[in-house]
Amino acid sequence: DDPLVIAGRSFNSRLLVGTGKYKDFEETRDAIAASGAEIVTVAVRRVNLATPGAPMLVDYLDPKVYTFLPNTAGCYTAEDAIRTLRLAREAGGWNLVKLEVLGNVKTLYPNMPETLRAAEILVKDGFEVMVYCADDPIAAKRLEEIGCCAIMPLAAPIGSGLGVQNPVNIRLIIEEAKVPVLVDAGVGTASDAAVAMELGCDAVLMNTAIAEAKHPILMARAMKAAIEAGRLAYRAGRMPRKLYADPSSPLAGLI
Amino acid sequence: DDPLVIAGRSFNSRLLVGTGKYKDFEETRDAIAASGAEIVTVAVRRVNLATPGAPMLVDYLDPKVYTFLPNTAGCYTAEDAIRTLRLAREAGGWNLVKLEVLGNVKTLYPNMPETLRAAEILVKDGFEVMVYCADDPIAAKRLEEIGCCAIMPLAAPIGSGLGVQNPVNIRLIIEEAKVPVLVDAGVGTASDAAVAMELGCDAVLMNTAIAEAKHPILMARAMKAAIEAGRLAYRAGRMPRKLYADPSSPLAGLI
Amino acid sequence: DDPLVIAGRSFNSRLLVGTGKYKDFEETRDAIAASGAEIVTVAVRRVNLATPGAPMLVDYLDPKVYTFLPNTAGCYTAEDAIRTLRLAREAGGWNLVKLEVLGNVKTLYPNMPETLRAAEILVKDGFEVMVYCADDPIAAKRLEEIGCCAIMPLAAPIGSGLGVQNPVNIRLIIEEAKVPVLVDAGVGTASDAAVAMELGCDAVLMNTAIAEAKHPILMARAMKAAIEAGRLAYRAGRMPRKLYADPSSPLAGLI
Amino acid sequence: DDPLVIAGRSFNSRLLVGTGKYKDFEETRDAIAASGAEIVTVAVRRVNLATPGAPMLVDYLDPKVYTFLPNTAGCYTAEDAIRTLRLAREAGGWNLVKLEVLGNVKTLYPNMPETLRAAEILVKDGFEVMVYCADDPIAAKRLEEIGCCAIMPLAAPIGSGLGVQNPVNIRLIIEEAKVPVLVDAGVGTASDAAVAMELGCDAVLMNTAIAEAKHPILMARAMKAAIEAGRLAYRAGRMPRKLYADPSSPLAGLI
Repeated sequence: DDPLVIAGRSFNSRLLVGTGKYKDFEETRDAIAASGAEIVTVAVRRVNLATPGAPMLVDYLDPKVYTFLPNTAGCYTAEDAIRTLRLAREAGGWNLVKLEVLGNVKTLYPNMPETLRAAEILVKDGFEVMVYCADDPIAAKRLEEIGCCAIMPLAAPIGSGLGVQNPVNIRLIIEEAKVPVLVDAGVGTASDAAVAMELGCDAVLMNTAIAEAKHPILMARAMKAAIEAGRLAYRAGRMPRKLYADPSSPLAGLI
Repeated sequence: DDPLVIAGRSFNSRLLVGTGKYKDFEETRDAIAASGAEIVTVAVRRVNLATPGAPMLVDYLDPKVYTFLPNTAGCYTAEDAIRTLRLAREAGGWNLVKLEVLGNVKTLYPNMPETLRAAEILVKDGFEVMVYCADDPIAAKRLEEIGCCAIMPLAAPIGSGLGVQNPVNIRLIIEEAKVPVLVDAGVGTASDAAVAMELGCDAVLMNTAIAEAKHPILMARAMKAAIEAGRLAYRAGRMPRKLYADPSSPLAGLI
Repeated sequence: DDPLVIAGRSFNSRLLVGTGKYKDFEETRDAIAASGAEIVTVAVRRVNLATPGAPMLVDYLDPKVYTFLPNTAGCYTAEDAIRTLRLAREAGGWNLVKLEVLGNVKTLYPNMPETLRAAEILVKDGFEVMVYCADDPIAAKRLEEIGCCAIMPLAAPIGSGLGVQNPVNIRLIIEEAKVPVLVDAGVGTASDAAVAMELGCDAVLMNTAIAEAKHPILMARAMKAAIEAGRLAYRAGRMPRKLYADPSSPLAGLI
Repeated sequence: DDPLVIAGRSFNSRLLVGTGKYKDFEETRDAIAASGAEIVTVAVRRVNLATPGAPMLVDYLDPKVYTFLPNTAGCYTAEDAIRTLRLAREAGGWNLVKLEVLGNVKTLYPNMPETLRAAEILVKDGFEVMVYCADDPIAAKRLEEIGCCAIMPLAAPIGSGLGVQNPVNIRLIIEEAKVPVLVDAGVGTASDAAVAMELGCDAVLMNTAIAEAKHPILMARAMKAAIEAGRLAYRAGRMPRKLYADPSSPLAGLI
């Protein structure tokens, strides 16, 4: 009754997950099943095309069940990202993609000028572009104007688990956006995901928080519940904060 | 598979809710049903004993379905609280109770010396005492030594919706406790509840956050999910926080 | 022009410092001089009464220049604290004292019932009692009613350097207090001290933050400036927080 | 002994201030004097060139005493900013300038692609460019590579008084920078300024926090002290944070 709609496609789950960092494909499969995610990101460069007979992700995650979202992890220039996604489209027919053009290895923050340039070319080229970006409201709006179908600001450095560092910026991005806004990267635990959703995000994409928890399957379940909790709380409209106490048990009668 | 056990009784839900502040008993009933709570607190002084024929809470919440937990809201001395709970026991047979002895109207913070004194007498008197207290690890331990069956430190002023103000203290209380620790009061939205559970609380008690949300039923559902999310995340063991990025898509292959 | 007045005595500096943890008495002396503090706390139990000829604190800090404030560090019962301060009064004539009755070694948090009991006896015994306490507004008010001349809630565990953990409580204590409120314990760096003063504290007492900085003398200077900054900001009245931008350069003319 | 060096020029104060928003030029002058600032920013567009005989800023702030830093407040395109600064250079000989190219009125956040483009042209044109930018470490590094002489990330929206929203990003920018990093915009009170300096910023630029305090002159003094406190604390090297207590009064002797 409250679907996530991206590029005209409708999803029940507002949790998107990555497929990296698990100890093996069994764990990948089980954690993703527990998360309830319908969209999974795949680093195009990581897909094993080299070794015939080696196990493959698609043996564990059925592309008819999950929407595969190819990303450009590891690309540091617009050209590299564009080339990667064109190869992905040729190879697998994927048109809905996640663009990321990284700035450096230490932060894995996006190079925004390159990202803007790549987004423009990819949109013109007919891709439906979900785009990883800085939590910069001006850049986020520009990416929407270019034609991206979802804006994906980072909450904190990829893999850091620090949670939403700048709620002011996420809020400003959401206020101006007419396409879905997804927090991408930086979530560390369940409450971080709930916070992102309470701010009004349409969805959250995560990977490390699940894969590097002590018990990934349990954490996948936690994240599923947290995304639902945050979304419901956003829709419910939280109580106002108060500086002083307010008795929750008004005394209407006396013994 | 992960029950909350208080005074030898086992519960599936780790969310306890109050019954005050709703617009009518229908909303009380529906919100509490949506929350999944099994224990509901009732201000003994508020129970309508005066007007024959007036609607009563028990007409809407079946005492066979819900565990009623009488509290001493509105009591400012040990004597007043003790007298109130003895009346409750005589009237309804309730032995599992929530003690609160308040310090002043502005903060509704507990008067801890009076609380300690009342707890001691009530425990000797055979009550099973869940006790509202300051987030003071030394006092919390003392309450456990006295024989209280659950320690209920405040997260923030009652009805303030400010969330867990001092996670350091909640953590210190939990580390030392051998009885359940419940955050009582101060939660404002779903992520606040998740944070409390991630710290290792056994459960959370709330009222205003649900009753004063714009849509109490939706918020009740949000809180149910948030409590589950926080508990699962606690059990899952969160990833470590990192100062720098860590690629979630390790590049194992190349196109 | 803005003196700190405690028990009728007036001080220019709002920074009180401890004398422990320095590598030697020279460093103690130099750091305290750099801090501008006029009141220094001394653990009565630590004062060297045993070894004749050994160096003594008073050889480095002139009791005519500094107000020595004996404290009861290491006391875990009211009796122990009372006995310690009576010995201090007999030995040194000190009447203005800092009471602390600790709850356990792990947190060094106060045992509040014992603290209240000791305070009552000491005040009746003619002491001017500055009192270390939990950040509990109800207990703080009670200590004032008992007759304590200054209320000293902790900001965070002693020696933790975590900064003010619960500004809501510190604010509530200050709002109700008619005697000076000093944050005691938990400050880690300059901004922590400024935060405490901006909340309206009358002064801050610290030790570890200076003594365990890499360069204690520099940090002592930092703290002196931070206390002044926080106090001035409090008196100046900060600007309101705004959710959106507000141009600081209104465009009154055009080139 | 610890000067701020920008573009080869040395300053004693690490506080830069704006000149807008004061009730009159007398207050501007007095607040700036109290702040100890040596560099003041002036919106070129705001300078009164229109009305002969009207009071002028330079009648109150002597350009021989203060370094005037023309800024491009109100410019929304690279061209507009470049034209404005060229006019300023022709009119006043100013070569050291502050570039800001804004993205929208609501946030006053920078338009980073336009900012990068303008910076490149201005540097080639011989300007010494201090540049207002998003707290984006990748963009900040690029601005340095272009040849900007100081990087000025925002702490929070201009005029919001929210303080440093994303210390992680400010830290990442500082770690990579070889030119001075100044926090520009968003500081609300003294502790905010201290926090920025403790992160390792070389200086802070502010306006509203002083001009819109209830008592601007007092707040200017507060900010002067806070900048010094934060800088000293940064140089001193703060104590490590600890999860548990650490007695500041080790008990070396016994009564």
